[in-house]
Amino acid sequence: MIHTMSLMHDDLPFMDNDDLRRGKPTNHKVFGEDVAVLAGDALLAYAFEHMAVATKGVPSERIVRVIGELAKCIGSEGLVAGQVVDICSEGNADVGLDHLEFIHIHKTAALLEGSVVLGAILGGANDQEVEKLRKFARCIGLLFQVVDDILDVTKSSQELGKTAGKDLLADKTTYPKLIGIDKSREFAAKLNREAQEQLAEFDPEKAAPLIALANYIAYRDH
Amino acid sequence: MIHTMSLMHDDLPFMDNDDLRRGKPTNHKVFGEDVAVLAGDALLAYAFEHMAVATKGVPSERIVRVIGELAKCIGSEGLVAGQVVDICSEGNADVGLDHLEFIHIHKTAALLEGSVVLGAILGGANDQEVEKLRKFARCIGLLFQVVDDILDVTKSSQELGKTAGKDLLADKTTYPKLIGIDKSREFAAKLNREAQEQLAEFDPEKAAPLIALANYIAYRDH
Repeated sequence: MIHTMSLMHDDLPFMDNDDLRRGKPTNHKVFGEDVAVLAGDALLAYAFEHMAVATKGVPSERIVRVIGELAKCIGSEGLVAGQVVDICSEGNADVGLDHLEFIHIHKTAALLEGSVVLGAILGGANDQEVEKLRKFARCIGLLFQVVDDILDVTKSSQELGKTAGKDLLADKTTYPKLIGIDKSREFAAKLNREAQEQLAEFDPEKAAPLIALANYIAYRDH
Repeated sequence: MIHTMSLMHDDLPFMDNDDLRRGKPTNHKVFGEDVAVLAGDALLAYAFEHMAVATKGVPSERIVRVIGELAKCIGSEGLVAGQVVDICSEGNADVGLDHLEFIHIHKTAALLEGSVVLGAILGGANDQEVEKLRKFARCIGLLFQVVDDILDVTKSSQELGKTAGKDLLADKTTYPKLIGIDKSREFAAKLNREAQEQLAEFDPEKAAPLIALANYIAYRDH
């Protein structure tokens, strides 16, 4: 959870440049690691409490199903799996494409998958629709990381609103490092295309916000 | 979660004396604190996944209700609250009876409460029955800690199967320290009596295992 919190802190989209320049300390710096770990446990439990207690106007069968979905996205087949593999890969020069994709699919895409799939189930989507939306979410989750890697080597710190080139400095395995900038851009375009293909059979008006989200992630420049 | 794991390791009833003498290291000693924290997160999520996915033959309304109950027992109104207050009380000489009871009710009794109340709800108990069983569980949870404190000062390490007198050495606030051994024993007897009173209106045959559990906790000598 400590690593996750640091990740979230680094990537929080609503932190402005002033916050970043001030270098706001994370929970574990202010309250100690023990209290930060417990805060993580409490928030994790509270997510489930909230779903169980505060979800109104939805059949209980669906609430039970989304609780199972979210738990799976978090646990040893989801976020935690990605985080553990990431930690264990630090300083390993042999991290290949499959390995990198495993980390991103689990660490970043799993919670995006949860966000999309939970809404679909609560809204009454059928199994086929849920699986299309699951694939959409995995594509944009991976897309987010590929674009992040590209921006780190192509933009200045000022444009990014955070330190540029830090992946290179940290000797981190990234898509540009493994396959070069051009192929990384092609891969990003392919992921965006695949994501949007999943939405083809949905009501275009209802799918519009998801298409906009995919394009926002693909074409963002910071 | 790190503290909780250490606590559970110390208190695991199925560890034999050989294990304790060998001093089996905890998760965070073997795999590092980061992986131990993530293991805690994964197990926490898995508890909810298991309840949502594997509970069969019970109406979904009850499954949603027990998920909300368990989450509350864990989070900032339960286990985590007790653990945080306990951590923040270390080295504080002014810990009084109310303070001590808050820690034990939240740190120890909350999960016992969950165990008892979840079973009651899944089994179809009405609200009044659930509240009686909740009070039963809180009483035996607190009883467990009062007895633990008494044994620490009255038994040898050999009898306990763990180091005796360690509360005194750690200058920990305990019931014997606050009110003396005799009053601690009276308090334990009162808690056992109160616990069993809650069961008076249940079918005696079905209540028998809970009565046996209360007596086991009250009269254990290690």
